[in-house]
Amino acid sequence: MTTTQTIQTLLSHRTVRRFTDQPVPDAHIQLAIEAGQRASTSSAVQAYSMIRLTDRAKRQTLAELCGNQKQVEKAGAFFVICADTRRHRLITERADAPYNAALEAFMVAVIDASLFAQNVVVAFESLGYGICYIGALRNQLPAVDELLSIPHGVYPLFGLCVGMEQRSEAGASDPIIDTIPRPRLPKQAVSFDNRYPSDAEVLGFIDQYNVQYASYLEARGATPRGWSDAIGTKFTNVSRPDLATYYQSKGACLE
Amino acid sequence: MTTTQTIQTLLSHRTVRRFTDQPVPDAHIQLAIEAGQRASTSSAVQAYSMIRLTDRAKRQTLAELCGNQKQVEKAGAFFVICADTRRHRLITERADAPYNAALEAFMVAVIDASLFAQNVVVAFESLGYGICYIGALRNQLPAVDELLSIPHGVYPLFGLCVGMEQRSEAGASDPIIDTIPRPRLPKQAVSFDNRYPSDAEVLGFIDQYNVQYASYLEARGATPRGWSDAIGTKFTNVSRPDLATYYQSKGACLE
Repeated sequence: MTTTQTIQTLLSHRTVRRFTDQPVPDAHIQLAIEAGQRASTSSAVQAYSMIRLTDRAKRQTLAELCGNQKQVEKAGAFFVICADTRRHRLITERADAPYNAALEAFMVAVIDASLFAQNVVVAFESLGYGICYIGALRNQLPAVDELLSIPHGVYPLFGLCVGMEQRSEAGASDPIIDTIPRPRLPKQAVSFDNRYPSDAEVLGFIDQYNVQYASYLEARGATPRGWSDAIGTKFTNVSRPDLATYYQSKGACLE
Repeated sequence: MTTTQTIQTLLSHRTVRRFTDQPVPDAHIQLAIEAGQRASTSSAVQAYSMIRLTDRAKRQTLAELCGNQKQVEKAGAFFVICADTRRHRLITERADAPYNAALEAFMVAVIDASLFAQNVVVAFESLGYGICYIGALRNQLPAVDELLSIPHGVYPLFGLCVGMEQRSEAGASDPIIDTIPRPRLPKQAVSFDNRYPSDAEVLGFIDQYNVQYASYLEARGATPRGWSDAIGTKFTNVSRPDLATYYQSKGACLE
């Protein structure tokens, strides 16, 4: 089948959480940002920002705010990705015009920032770096705001670790963890022609995936369980219940 | 400077709105979906779906629903990208457990779907296709749902046109439109170290960009105006005010 080097890069993505001390050269970071900025953006609003942490003390504090995830402190580079409506607000303010927005503006910013971030990630991965998104950045956002002077209208979404992967030593007990990518849902479970499938079809795909998912966990030396078990547990409990109140306090209109 | 073929692909992105009739072979579509699925996903929730339109009549109706955008009908392939919590809901329902979610779950789905979509886009572009996201899909979402049988818990986000670019004939009046990529904000306006910049700094970057943006419009033969003008107009008026009510009616918790 025809493929491309780029597709090979995309297909070989794995989450990397263990990094060497090697820093990421500024030239690579600038190139990744440039690649990020070329991503599509709704009506050119470019509603995103990225904050790099070069300050070691702030990196350490952020790692603590992200549930003590070591890689936030250890990775060659760490970034905070934000949905950003600040520039739009400053423009309307300077023109003495109202800034009027509904959920649409917030969604456009979240989507814009995500497309930007994924291009940044793909650029870094093509340069040989490993990456890890940090959703736990959303655990304590008011503290993140204070630490990085993030103003009204800017919504931190997730962190991003970038660096050279620390590979297991020969003879280490967990070489497999480094090499097995987590399986994804069958293609038929996420892509359809002309209409969304029936519930029975969807559940059939899920059951098929559960078997594969449990095998993957077993191969990693973890307790095997199906994807359904993990998902069922996750969505029975509300995660980050304060998020809406926080984003609204930053100016997001969710109505 | 070190770069990669992948980064060259990312940097050469332009929005393509004029397509030849050439269809996109299924093998390429499958490869792009696979590449999309390898994108990072929050705790493996994989909260996205992609619906391909192969039905010509449905394609035509969708083009109308997207404000009569010709490329929705003409592109080699057209997809609807959705944030998808349906699978999670079916799992909890089957286990007789409640599905409990807050804004976090909706945001994770929007972010997951966007990361997926951008990988799909990069894969297609690396294969030589042009692409165009269609935000106007959000203009008439209830009609999109009905057309594609999109159920509760699935939130269509945007459309995606993919195809071979129709290049201008030699001697045509608009060859430049095909070749100039729209400039982006200066890198310093979207990427910072350790703290968000002051309003004065941000406005300085914007003014710098306004000049470049106006030149770009002029080179395209359009009326030159700064980015601030476009943004000021855009955010003085509320866009798509019914979106929150609609997504909530589909089960999204925005609280």
